[in-house]
Amino acid sequence: MIHILLILCSIFTISTHAAVQDFCVADLKGPQSPTGYFCKPAATVTTDDFVSTGLRFAGNTSNIIKAAVTPAFTEQFPGVNGLGISIARLDLAPSGVVPMHTHPSGSELLLVTQGSIVAGFISSANAVYVKTLKKGDIMVFPQGLLHFQVNAGGVTAVAFASFSSATPGLQILDFALFANDLPSKLVEATTFLDDATVKKLKAVLGGTG
Amino acid sequence: MIHILLILCSIFTISTHAAVQDFCVADLKGPQSPTGYFCKPAATVTTDDFVSTGLRFAGNTSNIIKAAVTPAFTEQFPGVNGLGISIARLDLAPSGVVPMHTHPSGSELLLVTQGSIVAGFISSANAVYVKTLKKGDIMVFPQGLLHFQVNAGGVTAVAFASFSSATPGLQILDFALFANDLPSKLVEATTFLDDATVKKLKAVLGGTG
Amino acid sequence: MIHILLILCSIFTISTHAAVQDFCVADLKGPQSPTGYFCKPAATVTTDDFVSTGLRFAGNTSNIIKAAVTPAFTEQFPGVNGLGISIARLDLAPSGVVPMHTHPSGSELLLVTQGSIVAGFISSANAVYVKTLKKGDIMVFPQGLLHFQVNAGGVTAVAFASFSSATPGLQILDFALFANDLPSKLVEATTFLDDATVKKLKAVLGGTG
Amino acid sequence: MIHILLILCSIFTISTHAAVQDFCVADLKGPQSPTGYFCKPAATVTTDDFVSTGLRFAGNTSNIIKAAVTPAFTEQFPGVNGLGISIARLDLAPSGVVPMHTHPSGSELLLVTQGSIVAGFISSANAVYVKTLKKGDIMVFPQGLLHFQVNAGGVTAVAFASFSSATPGLQILDFALFANDLPSKLVEATTFLDDATVKKLKAVLGGTG
Amino acid sequence: MIHILLILCSIFTISTHAAVQDFCVADLKGPQSPTGYFCKPAATVTTDDFVSTGLRFAGNTSNIIKAAVTPAFTEQFPGVNGLGISIARLDLAPSGVVPMHTHPSGSELLLVTQGSIVAGFISSANAVYVKTLKKGDIMVFPQGLLHFQVNAGGVTAVAFASFSSATPGLQILDFALFANDLPSKLVEATTFLDDATVKKLKAVLGGTG
Amino acid sequence: MIHILLILCSIFTISTHAAVQDFCVADLKGPQSPTGYFCKPAATVTTDDFVSTGLRFAGNTSNIIKAAVTPAFTEQFPGVNGLGISIARLDLAPSGVVPMHTHPSGSELLLVTQGSIVAGFISSANAVYVKTLKKGDIMVFPQGLLHFQVNAGGVTAVAFASFSSATPGLQILDFALFANDLPSKLVEATTFLDDATVKKLKAVLGGTG
Repeated sequence: MIHILLILCSIFTISTHAAVQDFCVADLKGPQSPTGYFCKPAATVTTDDFVSTGLRFAGNTSNIIKAAVTPAFTEQFPGVNGLGISIARLDLAPSGVVPMHTHPSGSELLLVTQGSIVAGFISSANAVYVKTLKKGDIMVFPQGLLHFQVNAGGVTAVAFASFSSATPGLQILDFALFANDLPSKLVEATTFLDDATVKKLKAVLGGTG
Repeated sequence: MIHILLILCSIFTISTHAAVQDFCVADLKGPQSPTGYFCKPAATVTTDDFVSTGLRFAGNTSNIIKAAVTPAFTEQFPGVNGLGISIARLDLAPSGVVPMHTHPSGSELLLVTQGSIVAGFISSANAVYVKTLKKGDIMVFPQGLLHFQVNAGGVTAVAFASFSSATPGLQILDFALFANDLPSKLVEATTFLDDATVKKLKAVLGGTG
Repeated sequence: MIHILLILCSIFTISTHAAVQDFCVADLKGPQSPTGYFCKPAATVTTDDFVSTGLRFAGNTSNIIKAAVTPAFTEQFPGVNGLGISIARLDLAPSGVVPMHTHPSGSELLLVTQGSIVAGFISSANAVYVKTLKKGDIMVFPQGLLHFQVNAGGVTAVAFASFSSATPGLQILDFALFANDLPSKLVEATTFLDDATVKKLKAVLGGTG
Repeated sequence: MIHILLILCSIFTISTHAAVQDFCVADLKGPQSPTGYFCKPAATVTTDDFVSTGLRFAGNTSNIIKAAVTPAFTEQFPGVNGLGISIARLDLAPSGVVPMHTHPSGSELLLVTQGSIVAGFISSANAVYVKTLKKGDIMVFPQGLLHFQVNAGGVTAVAFASFSSATPGLQILDFALFANDLPSKLVEATTFLDDATVKKLKAVLGGTG
Repeated sequence: MIHILLILCSIFTISTHAAVQDFCVADLKGPQSPTGYFCKPAATVTTDDFVSTGLRFAGNTSNIIKAAVTPAFTEQFPGVNGLGISIARLDLAPSGVVPMHTHPSGSELLLVTQGSIVAGFISSANAVYVKTLKKGDIMVFPQGLLHFQVNAGGVTAVAFASFSSATPGLQILDFALFANDLPSKLVEATTFLDDATVKKLKAVLGGTG
Repeated sequence: MIHILLILCSIFTISTHAAVQDFCVADLKGPQSPTGYFCKPAATVTTDDFVSTGLRFAGNTSNIIKAAVTPAFTEQFPGVNGLGISIARLDLAPSGVVPMHTHPSGSELLLVTQGSIVAGFISSANAVYVKTLKKGDIMVFPQGLLHFQVNAGGVTAVAFASFSSATPGLQILDFALFANDLPSKLVEATTFLDDATVKKLKAVLGGTG
């Protein structure tokens, strides 16, 4: 019995040392490193750090895009910190749209679980890859490329997007161009859009300048 | 107009060069590098390389574990090659089980889309993290750790597992120990299982030695 | 002397083995892996594989953007294959513009060597970071974010952009949206631009649909 | 002389800046990031941070497995923090066994320095790779796969295992399954082991439930 | 209008979460992780964190090497922290020399912007790659290999070296060998240099022992 | 029984797909990618690909450095290809020396298994870290930094160096400077060594120019 304790002891020592490397649940109150948040002390980690019920219910689609994106990235789901994976729920009411956007830090794998969605991306060579997806279909969007999703049916569509990063980022084209104080003249010079169009969209999306 | 062609030309030249880096659809007939398959020539890539309908339908659960795992890894879904992400569909009939297993090369993020599942993993410190998941719940399993999924309800459960690798691998404990010619004496010496147990499981799972 | 030959021999053996890992000059005729082109045989590599004179002279700025981007990515400069770095020359005639764009696979560090440039990027939080740069100034654009450069003076400006990838990619917003066959209705639905604007830009940039 | 000081000065400035990147000796009292511990201030680093005498002597093999594993991972050897390498000493008394286990975060390269060892691993395809190793022989075990070592001679065997990570982790199969409170019913359902076997091993290894 | 606020709100929430991953401006007062400094709080980041004017002017070449290296690595340019890129300015007066050196953590891409430079590196196979570079020429030096730059003309030469790391490091051969307290006997035994040579260079460069 | 075959079948299918990612034994006859050699077809891989007896015996120390380095890098030991680890055997006869050198692509962990060795490295800040190691001691040398090993006793010493790369490279300072056709004038200008010293060492080491 003493032997058992000895071996338990020595092995557990090893294991405890290694354990910290198994996972790194984010301490959201602490600062960040280039690769993610600091780790919560292993002793304070519980099962609930690795589980989330936040994607159980539909997001609010009562908005101009008739769509909602509910992320489970590190900030909402600290258990994925440092693990190179995360997920988000997409709800698209009829005629709902997830506008043209990019994820600066990760590739996306989309899974449709309800309804039908037209999804597509554009490559650096300006080639277009578009498809209508039905329930159970998957489509992958390579890192950093412009892509979009549009409800292709008369009913609400639901999809789940997995990412190859715990914090893939999300840059929505119209918000990047029109929902801030980037001077209209610079927007026009760099997008070839006319002044009226830029001013109109800035007004709609709350931009200034 | 000539100017437009000039700029189009020059830009497209640049873009074509860069495009190869946007994605690397696997040429499954070619050899592999340590980071994945060679890339199909960009000119032969089509939208269908980035889309799969292979997870639309339930896998066959008429087997001893009453479960099926349908992967969309690089070999089934060449579009994810080199993108650091993949997915698999899990179907668990009532009392179905995905036995204790590991993924040597990736972390897993499980999403339950039907029914209820008891899922868990064990850390290097031998700590146990188990939870009963309902539709819409997610759970993450850090890379390389033993984990499992068991149907927790009376109805068929369905889940989708995303991975932080295009080829996460799958090592099922019982198949690794009992479904090959690893000599029984070595299995017994390294697992503390008795000869009868090892011989019985080798018989059930088609192992020899 | 025999000893010297012995040691030379043995050391050179080692070194030759290791050498292949020093660099991997791209064999542009061969296929690619997810991390870059195959390597030219070490025996055929010469100094000229590591040197390029292609950025000595200004690119042609006689086009609608009054600007030219001359890349030295892997395809133009095979010596950087696998080394995680590359460079491009920017020439901006008076009122020249490098339109809003992203690099899907790398961060950019801009160095102004002649004239003056207004450069900026937009973050995922839609925050704007803009600055007027003079000769000798540098600015960094984090990976995957929308950014732009505009000539800020009355004379031609020149800059060199270094990248944290041998193939950073280049996705120019207007070409991605308007220089291909992405249906106008999808462009409009995902960008909030009106039909007239989309049709006009497609006409200018050679798009269809 | 003033010139020398000038150059020394300027160069040392550069070097000091760079030095922090040469190494990152772990501050074991501080928190961790996903890639390892914070770095000790460079000024407090000494030669002893890069040297360990902890593997000079045999570990205690007076236990049920007649073996000892003495790691020099980051927690025992802070100098390897962030360097992607570590080592452990294995002592196997006659009939000693390092039981079936995995390293979730690294590949292992085994070197036998005394006696003889039967070592092997099992691939994701359930293929078995087993060999009897003599003094001076090496064997590599790819990341995350089940493997084991058994003394193959009548005398004590000694080996050193190097890892491709500063914290490779160590998950010993029997401890993961039987040395914790994972309910016996779940162990049985996910391993196909019978209740008597599970209960017996839980008793031996200190597990409950 | 309320809808717009709703969507703005929800999107901004997402974006703010993601934003931290866009960049990680170094908090130089804080500690470091193996991958770089902690990040400044996003709220305190300004455009000036991404811009530097420190390379506008020539460094002081009044020293024994008639050359100056002015780095913009993380410590001088915190905006590159975690982005895998940095830059340095080289000024070489007539007959100026950047002595034989290595960058332990990154590859270098040299761009000559004034004058003429003889640059070269030596591979692990002891092969020599040397070239005389003129204004506008670029040359790449693979990671960790010995290389050098020498003014090849009668006028001051200027070049900018980009690196595939935010902290590439800089180890200057003569300073490593002779500008510290490494015992002369060890220097002689490991370099085959005679005692007089070692003692002389230690005297010139401020070394002892 | 049919059920067993079904499950075996389906699981083996999965496993075979994943297996390619378990390991990538180098096909030394094929070309290389930036991350290593192509993989041998999985079907042709045997246990012997993962085992080497090449380090059993002492290397030939009858040479000017009274030392031998016997590597087990990818080219000698194809099983480590892509696994981020390798090893080499060092034999140092009395007064034997492994001269000042660097490994451009990996950190080194040295283990002394016989005799006594004085080992040391120099940081980018020109700080010296030297120690006399006895049997069983380990020392780590961070990537890319100059380091050396000298026999510290009257008997032959043996050590094993593990590396954090399958092809760490090896650049021996004297061979890089003097065993090739790098013109003496350039060597002198970039090392501050006098002409007589350079010419003498070139003569001894077989260099020209």
